[in-house]
Amino acid sequence: MRADIITIGDEILIGQIIDTNSARIATLLGEVGISIRRKFSIGDRRDEILDAVGNSLELCDVTIITGGLGPTKDDITKKVLAELFGSKLIRDDETYHRVERMMAARGIEFNELNQSQALVPECCTVIPNLKGTAPGMWFERNGHVVISLPGVPFEMEALMVEEIIPRLKERFNLSAVVHRTAITFGMAESMLAAHIAEWEESLPTHLHLAYLPSPSQLRLRLSAYDVERETAEREIDEWFDQLLPLLGDHFVGWEDETVQSAVAKMLIERGETLAAAESCTGGTISAKFTAMSGASEYYWGGVVSYDNSVKENVLGVSRENLENYGAVSEQVARQMAEGVRRLCGTTYGISTTGIAGPTGGTPEKPVGTVWMAVATPDGTISKVVQHGKIRAVNIERAASAAINMLRLYLLHK
Amino acid sequence: MRADIITIGDEILIGQIIDTNSARIATLLGEVGISIRRKFSIGDRRDEILDAVGNSLELCDVTIITGGLGPTKDDITKKVLAELFGSKLIRDDETYHRVERMMAARGIEFNELNQSQALVPECCTVIPNLKGTAPGMWFERNGHVVISLPGVPFEMEALMVEEIIPRLKERFNLSAVVHRTAITFGMAESMLAAHIAEWEESLPTHLHLAYLPSPSQLRLRLSAYDVERETAEREIDEWFDQLLPLLGDHFVGWEDETVQSAVAKMLIERGETLAAAESCTGGTISAKFTAMSGASEYYWGGVVSYDNSVKENVLGVSRENLENYGAVSEQVARQMAEGVRRLCGTTYGISTTGIAGPTGGTPEKPVGTVWMAVATPDGTISKVVQHGKIRAVNIERAASAAINMLRLYLLHK
Repeated sequence: MRADIITIGDEILIGQIIDTNSARIATLLGEVGISIRRKFSIGDRRDEILDAVGNSLELCDVTIITGGLGPTKDDITKKVLAELFGSKLIRDDETYHRVERMMAARGIEFNELNQSQALVPECCTVIPNLKGTAPGMWFERNGHVVISLPGVPFEMEALMVEEIIPRLKERFNLSAVVHRTAITFGMAESMLAAHIAEWEESLPTHLHLAYLPSPSQLRLRLSAYDVERETAEREIDEWFDQLLPLLGDHFVGWEDETVQSAVAKMLIERGETLAAAESCTGGTISAKFTAMSGASEYYWGGVVSYDNSVKENVLGVSRENLENYGAVSEQVARQMAEGVRRLCGTTYGISTTGIAGPTGGTPEKPVGTVWMAVATPDGTISKVVQHGKIRAVNIERAASAAINMLRLYLLHK
Repeated sequence: MRADIITIGDEILIGQIIDTNSARIATLLGEVGISIRRKFSIGDRRDEILDAVGNSLELCDVTIITGGLGPTKDDITKKVLAELFGSKLIRDDETYHRVERMMAARGIEFNELNQSQALVPECCTVIPNLKGTAPGMWFERNGHVVISLPGVPFEMEALMVEEIIPRLKERFNLSAVVHRTAITFGMAESMLAAHIAEWEESLPTHLHLAYLPSPSQLRLRLSAYDVERETAEREIDEWFDQLLPLLGDHFVGWEDETVQSAVAKMLIERGETLAAAESCTGGTISAKFTAMSGASEYYWGGVVSYDNSVKENVLGVSRENLENYGAVSEQVARQMAEGVRRLCGTTYGISTTGIAGPTGGTPEKPVGTVWMAVATPDGTISKVVQHGKIRAVNIERAASAAINMLRLYLLHK
């Protein structure tokens, strides 16, 4: 089972809005075993729509189209689909009266433009859209299904989840697709690939491995297509069981896990608390924890000690250390972590101090040098990392590395 | 001039990541007058890549490809492009030595996989990627240009801005496109549109107005296509001259300006300093300032007082206020701003305390309620804002609103 996703609309094409619909649709289709052949984004132009939908009809089982269903002149999807399927536009009474009621409820005139929302190609099955004016439409030709949905994300989402997915499951005898993703931290893509090469090479050909890197983690995804779900899940689990010993402490968790969510779980479980003292990461560690709902249970706060006076006066870093070793030093990182732990009265304190760049580097401490420390009830540990030249990436990497340092400590405590 | 954008990679196709690259590329191409015919997303599969790139080569002047250039086995873009252009992979010495140096600097082994990043099709022009290991590649056939870029967003961005756009301008005789963007804050799109409707309706048809909203600002862009540059620039300036009085204090600046960069300029000019006390924004205000290089000149730091104990013990918020009015209150916001100003010894202190959601709301203080304050040498001002239900959006909006409150104070001082 293969599907294409076609988004129609100049606003996506020219980059004015980012297309989130197609990722959501792909995820929903993937969950029921329909794999995606292609996504297309095209403008509101007759020839482009005819070409893209016609091509997809030939090569795929299912084509999902979003967008181009608004009441204004530039939205022509319906007309072009009627042409493609040799049909004419007729009024769908149910839609007409629903839109009429919606307009009345919102005090908007039920004018010609709004009335036109009830026009649909005669040959399609209308799928009622309870959240908006443009209905979904289901077309079939020679066993191929073409579905047209409104582009408004929450209207599309409701139609996909409540109508389209159940109908597709019923219409086709769907085989399963299984994905599982392991989150890792601390090993670069090339090193990890070399480290697990033997395991990767022994994977059966029907299991597909993908490396998905970002500055804050490296994800490893195993996928199986066209399979019996339970068998494939068991098989993927077995292969990951073999992989985990190779990953060791680099393994953070499954699916949406992050270093900060892994730390959060351990702290909550143990009833322990955390505060952060940040120089070069400038609040990013705090923002990562507090972005998660429920952070108040274990994350008490922190100090952004960007200026040395704040390191000294708020965190109690000694002037001697600042003068003798510089702000970017092991001594200062340790005093920052210890200072914020004491100040906030938490179980742990973590810290970062480094040179985010692009300026400020020296031969001894080039841009990307970051000292970090974790203060614990049993003493303080510290390390230095060396990243690259790009400020935003250095900040992201250093924040994740400091959180990971605490994760490793908690794992082994 | 027409271009296709092709993103390669299973992670986009299956919906695991949202494609932001193609919107960015479309925007950059649009700015130099290249319109987009189609965007494609395809998987890491030879036949799909050959088909999509081959089709684009026939129908477009320019094809931009991103992704599929990693060192691991699932990334096959290079091999397939070599096949399509009837070329073989050879080692590019400059890339080889650059990657070697990058790995050495980060302490990563320069193994076979990393070395393979220097292999490129013999027929292409290599475009050095100074931010990552995979170089850009420029192919030509019968006057058509195909460009392959890494999928990592900041690597793609740097290559597009610094190399590809200048080379495309030189290679093709591009007609001029003129854009100018005014940054505004504090007025919703629909309200602003109503407020400036008369001005908008009197715009000549060859000037195109776009509203570009985000949680942290609303941008207004005026564009002119296929024009004589200097005339168009003068004309756009004149129309904006008429608009600015209508925008009033909502006008923040031009192009890449943000509320924080506008505040930064004013503080640097006056030799003044700032610290932030953040509860619900959890470090985001600090992260916004410290994301800008040179922040140490005026941004001294801050306190993330997520737990009430930190508000009390570090910032000096009184227990009476916390108990009588709650943490989300005008009294606490004011004491937080005053406390962080005193603690850090800065000219100004700003604060936020609110309910980011999705839980924690009450009938009197629903999710999205945020109190904020600015402490100054002449006293403290405070206000409350009411945002929506989505945690990440509330955090972003509240951080920008607090910074904007300081911006307005500085404007009128």
